[in-house]
Amino acid sequence: MPTFSSFVPPRRVLMGPGPSDVSPRVLEALSRPTIGHLDPAFISLMEEIKQLLRYAFQTENELTMPISGPGTAGMETCVVNLVEPGEKVIVCQNGVFGGRLKEMVKRCGGLVIPVDDPWGRAVDPEKVETALRAHPDTAVVAVVHAETSTGALSDVATIAALARNAGALSIVDAVTSLGGSELRTDDWGIDAVYSGTQKCLSVPPGLSPITLNDRAVAKVRGRKTPVQSWFMDLNLILGYWTGGAQRSYHHTAPINALYGLHEGLRVLAEEGIEKSWARHTANHHALRAGLESAGLTFAVPEAERLPQLNSILVPDVVDDAASRKALLERFGLEIGAGLGALAGKVWRIGLMGYASRRENIDLCVEAVETVVREAVTGMPHVQ
Amino acid sequence: MPTFSSFVPPRRVLMGPGPSDVSPRVLEALSRPTIGHLDPAFISLMEEIKQLLRYAFQTENELTMPISGPGTAGMETCVVNLVEPGEKVIVCQNGVFGGRLKEMVKRCGGLVIPVDDPWGRAVDPEKVETALRAHPDTAVVAVVHAETSTGALSDVATIAALARNAGALSIVDAVTSLGGSELRTDDWGIDAVYSGTQKCLSVPPGLSPITLNDRAVAKVRGRKTPVQSWFMDLNLILGYWTGGAQRSYHHTAPINALYGLHEGLRVLAEEGIEKSWARHTANHHALRAGLESAGLTFAVPEAERLPQLNSILVPDVVDDAASRKALLERFGLEIGAGLGALAGKVWRIGLMGYASRRENIDLCVEAVETVVREAVTGMPHVQ
Repeated sequence: MPTFSSFVPPRRVLMGPGPSDVSPRVLEALSRPTIGHLDPAFISLMEEIKQLLRYAFQTENELTMPISGPGTAGMETCVVNLVEPGEKVIVCQNGVFGGRLKEMVKRCGGLVIPVDDPWGRAVDPEKVETALRAHPDTAVVAVVHAETSTGALSDVATIAALARNAGALSIVDAVTSLGGSELRTDDWGIDAVYSGTQKCLSVPPGLSPITLNDRAVAKVRGRKTPVQSWFMDLNLILGYWTGGAQRSYHHTAPINALYGLHEGLRVLAEEGIEKSWARHTANHHALRAGLESAGLTFAVPEAERLPQLNSILVPDVVDDAASRKALLERFGLEIGAGLGALAGKVWRIGLMGYASRRENIDLCVEAVETVVREAVTGMPHVQ
Repeated sequence: MPTFSSFVPPRRVLMGPGPSDVSPRVLEALSRPTIGHLDPAFISLMEEIKQLLRYAFQTENELTMPISGPGTAGMETCVVNLVEPGEKVIVCQNGVFGGRLKEMVKRCGGLVIPVDDPWGRAVDPEKVETALRAHPDTAVVAVVHAETSTGALSDVATIAALARNAGALSIVDAVTSLGGSELRTDDWGIDAVYSGTQKCLSVPPGLSPITLNDRAVAKVRGRKTPVQSWFMDLNLILGYWTGGAQRSYHHTAPINALYGLHEGLRVLAEEGIEKSWARHTANHHALRAGLESAGLTFAVPEAERLPQLNSILVPDVVDDAASRKALLERFGLEIGAGLGALAGKVWRIGLMGYASRRENIDLCVEAVETVVREAVTGMPHVQ
């Protein structure tokens, strides 16, 4: 039989595209004793999580809950419930995750109407407007709020309004934005939003909070075809999450992960969502000042930058992989590599949730400055 | 903004159909600091988890890994990857979970050939043989090893052999059996197995270990149609879990949940899988002796009983829901209600993993005896 030691993680500061550093309060909550998923005490916890998520999403939507899987499962849950075979779906793509949305729409029989923008730029709402005029029978418009693969922030308020005026539903990917960038689900009239826990909520990965308004729920309830996924069928999941005293079993909820989410959402509510947005922005400016002083350049135009995910051009003088390895091994600092079209071209530096702190900015600036200087001088910096 | 206290779970002994009591070692592991999903240290952890799971499944299969969702996600992953539209699938049903398999097969375009047995009985291999003769073009045979909804154990070794002789693949649901009942994936020639963490592994719910042999992987790799789920497409997931140094990103792995699984699998390996099976059987006999002394009757015939999930007929004198409430509130003891055809007729008493201990048997027998006696005498037992 295999014998391994208990796993002791190395000391890291997580400033990549996620997971971000998890608050000690959340880590402690994860280790509380497991109880049953139908226990009255757990049902109360679920109700509190729903209320806390409504606050985070800035919504009154009844259907607000965590999906029992990572952000990708939340994305697919929204797509397979809201798209019926043969329907037209405008998918905005300006990075990896718009591409993933397209693939999911195709796999459930939707017809993708692509609206493509360059990687590292925001989605252009005028292109969405043009696509809606060309395809007035569009059923759904899907767009990523904060494109984690590039660090670009898109104007989903405008895009959701365009969709609604054209009679289409909107799906917004808020995986990296929730808690870090202004997101007002109700005020902006977004019909469905999904997110993840491992970005600005600073909860470990594995859950995907979603919220759907009444228009979206009506579509799910009135589908002509069954949702192709049994696991993700909201008609069934709602029997458990909104069933009240008559809650019906669908799948066993991930109890301890939900303890962690509850605590992470409490941390957010204590700070206040607007203050959290402001902190992410302020820390972004501090990081920017430090990195620019060190001679580094941002990849995304200023007006379209995400505060919580900073894409920096990899300086010509350094070796991408070797530098990130040095940051990890010598400074315990994780930053992200470029993905897809930006692979090898950018570093992605996250400032998300609990990780968005002054001491992390100082560490990051010093560490990045060091590895770049060493590349220029050809000698390791004496520490 | 909503303000809630940090969640402190009530003290419970989990002897229902799962989740089961989680080992303190596993709870502690959950709270270790989160690291990145592409961190070299995490990649090493993933390799150890794969080896430990191979031991638990008794297999050498390369594709052995946890799916990032509960057992239901593992079930659907096996079905959507191994069934193509239009293919015939024999689904054995003797409880809730066979019914769930049928629904998933239908939703991905498979043609269900039902093999039904009464709830509370094992699947009859002769019926499977007859169905295979009537449908020689059957592509897949799906069967539940340990039917959690009834407490019946089926002979999946014989059923997998029948499938293989007929040229069909076998899918076995081992959610409740893994670690608690003899399961020999390779020796029995099973092509695909999925399980859950919250039963006899005594890890919180949220992950679904799966294993596929080369025949099953060849089918996934050689599909004529794309897997309908992007999230569950093993062709994509394997790029992350078996990609070696060139691991490609698919979704963010649930880091801390995997710390817990690693520790839970270490606990199993330290005990030894055969010893774990034997412990579950011995404790089942002890519980049986106690409950029968108290006048209670098992719902499943002796030869077909699961040691880790004991279905007891609800005595005529008691109120089902009120009695379970009394067990929970006065004894901190969670047992399970009947499901589906057995709702209101049985209690399901789990003895799984860390919960399968002598002290729990004593607590359960005393508590159940007490609430039954009180129902007979009409007065609460003085404690």
